[in-house]
Amino acid sequence: MKDEFSFISKITPRHTHQSSLKVAIGDDAAVYSGTDLFDEVICVDTMVEGIHFRKDTLTPYQIGKKALAVNLSDLAAMGAIPHYYLVSIAIPKSWSEEQLEAVYHGMKDLANQFKVDLIGGDTVSIQECLVITVTVIGRVEKNRSLLRSSAEVGDNVFVTGYVGGSAAGLSLLLEKGNEAPYFDHEQELIKAHQEPVPQVRAGRIFAQSNERISLNDVSDGLASEANEIAEASQVTLLLYEEKLPLHPAMSANELDQQLDAALYGGEDFQLIGTASKETFPLIQAECKRQGISLHLIGEVIDNQPAVYLQKENAKILLSKKGYNHFSK
Amino acid sequence: MKDEFSFISKITPRHTHQSSLKVAIGDDAAVYSGTDLFDEVICVDTMVEGIHFRKDTLTPYQIGKKALAVNLSDLAAMGAIPHYYLVSIAIPKSWSEEQLEAVYHGMKDLANQFKVDLIGGDTVSIQECLVITVTVIGRVEKNRSLLRSSAEVGDNVFVTGYVGGSAAGLSLLLEKGNEAPYFDHEQELIKAHQEPVPQVRAGRIFAQSNERISLNDVSDGLASEANEIAEASQVTLLLYEEKLPLHPAMSANELDQQLDAALYGGEDFQLIGTASKETFPLIQAECKRQGISLHLIGEVIDNQPAVYLQKENAKILLSKKGYNHFSK
Repeated sequence: MKDEFSFISKITPRHTHQSSLKVAIGDDAAVYSGTDLFDEVICVDTMVEGIHFRKDTLTPYQIGKKALAVNLSDLAAMGAIPHYYLVSIAIPKSWSEEQLEAVYHGMKDLANQFKVDLIGGDTVSIQECLVITVTVIGRVEKNRSLLRSSAEVGDNVFVTGYVGGSAAGLSLLLEKGNEAPYFDHEQELIKAHQEPVPQVRAGRIFAQSNERISLNDVSDGLASEANEIAEASQVTLLLYEEKLPLHPAMSANELDQQLDAALYGGEDFQLIGTASKETFPLIQAECKRQGISLHLIGEVIDNQPAVYLQKENAKILLSKKGYNHFSK
Repeated sequence: MKDEFSFISKITPRHTHQSSLKVAIGDDAAVYSGTDLFDEVICVDTMVEGIHFRKDTLTPYQIGKKALAVNLSDLAAMGAIPHYYLVSIAIPKSWSEEQLEAVYHGMKDLANQFKVDLIGGDTVSIQECLVITVTVIGRVEKNRSLLRSSAEVGDNVFVTGYVGGSAAGLSLLLEKGNEAPYFDHEQELIKAHQEPVPQVRAGRIFAQSNERISLNDVSDGLASEANEIAEASQVTLLLYEEKLPLHPAMSANELDQQLDAALYGGEDFQLIGTASKETFPLIQAECKRQGISLHLIGEVIDNQPAVYLQKENAKILLSKKGYNHFSK
């Protein structure tokens, strides 16, 4: 997730005390120390009831699953293998023991899927709303972590899977509630919102390619994530509207609505990145071999930090307007 | 800090997916993986406004300092060297940018003192109260981490520094407020509450002794921490009332008040532990050499999990009644 407060940049450290250990920060996960073979990667994300989730749009089980998924996605964006997680949870009286067990059950099911172990945490009281903070630690082959700052002019821009589905699903839930009857395609969108799957395997394909690849995960919408790559790499990304892999279950919606969900919706937890024109077909083929769709959606065209959308004959500047959850 | 909710024990993992990597959990920090030379140690703690701190008892600077201190203390209790920290913070509208900068400034000052680097985090919004979650990563020499489960019958029980000062300082603040005029000895107690110093150096002395030592940090009061060692090691600790190093600035208070602060007050962030009768004089001498006072406060007398206080001729059973902050 993104730092929403400007003062944070002021406190970013300019040097480290561990001169023998390298630290890469700026991406959502930090790379540090490790061994001769591996770098350690760590990330932490907080989800707040009423801001990032509500009981009427996610079940407790899904809330737990998503709290871990957000972090696994951050690690996937570094190409890392997740190993361990810690859960710090602040619990108000409005949550029952059964609901809390379901939260942990959701995390555990996703953790088992990716062979990640719960190794610690903290449990405290709070007055108003549930707050879940998950820390995940993983590893990536030495100097192989995939940073936002690796894009170069001439690169292809790609994204895994479909985008926009999560935001479209959330719109349905906010409009009709969790208990309403839904068509199959609507249920697909709701599922995309409620139980997103972090693209750990795709991240590993990119890391193991041993090629220069920039990478980011789609937590705040394509526009925001593309802008982060553009800023970190000081390049211009041009995305082609007709190439965006809009979630097919949205096809009944207006095109502008679909684009809005994909560009500004967020929480799809797909991976967006860039690779050279030579590398792209190789990683696309390997993704296909493993059942993952990798879509070519644009190009890196210049050395100025900006993102444009080519829509028919118009080039539209895409600002970094992120997804503001329920505050829309 | 302690898990206050019973369901947590149900979700403690019984096996790990990383068969090649060892995981020790149960202490406040978890030991995992690492190299041939080092084990990695990680811990996470959450502090909630209104539960763990209030703006009228701590300044924003002190809140930041304490949020990190809690975690450095957890690592000290494992004998580990802290290296990195991550800060996940949920911010309500009632906090100004200046106050938030002061929070980070407080963390940074303590971090610099212990040569620890901020490497990441998350920043989100919340409706009501500030929530700070700090994750700290460190290292300890391979298989040298100091667990609560290492106590044996015949051991001496020890504690570093003074105890009870933090709780006595909090009582003053809750009674008279932050702005009241205070005597010098009262200011000392208030300082003990507002800016506790984690005993990282003492933890390192114990780890480097290469001896069997059980260890815990005093976050919830001596009674609670001693009980944790008793339970983890399945032993009985007998503490001698007259040997407890009650904070000297409390001496104007009734003895029972002083004892209550030391046994049930918490947040002194001293280290309590046990070592064999042969080891204790060695680590006490090394502590003295480094300017740290290490007090002999009791003995391990039996193989049943229990803690007693010898008070004159009476043996009083000390329950694990922890410190409940403002809910007293």
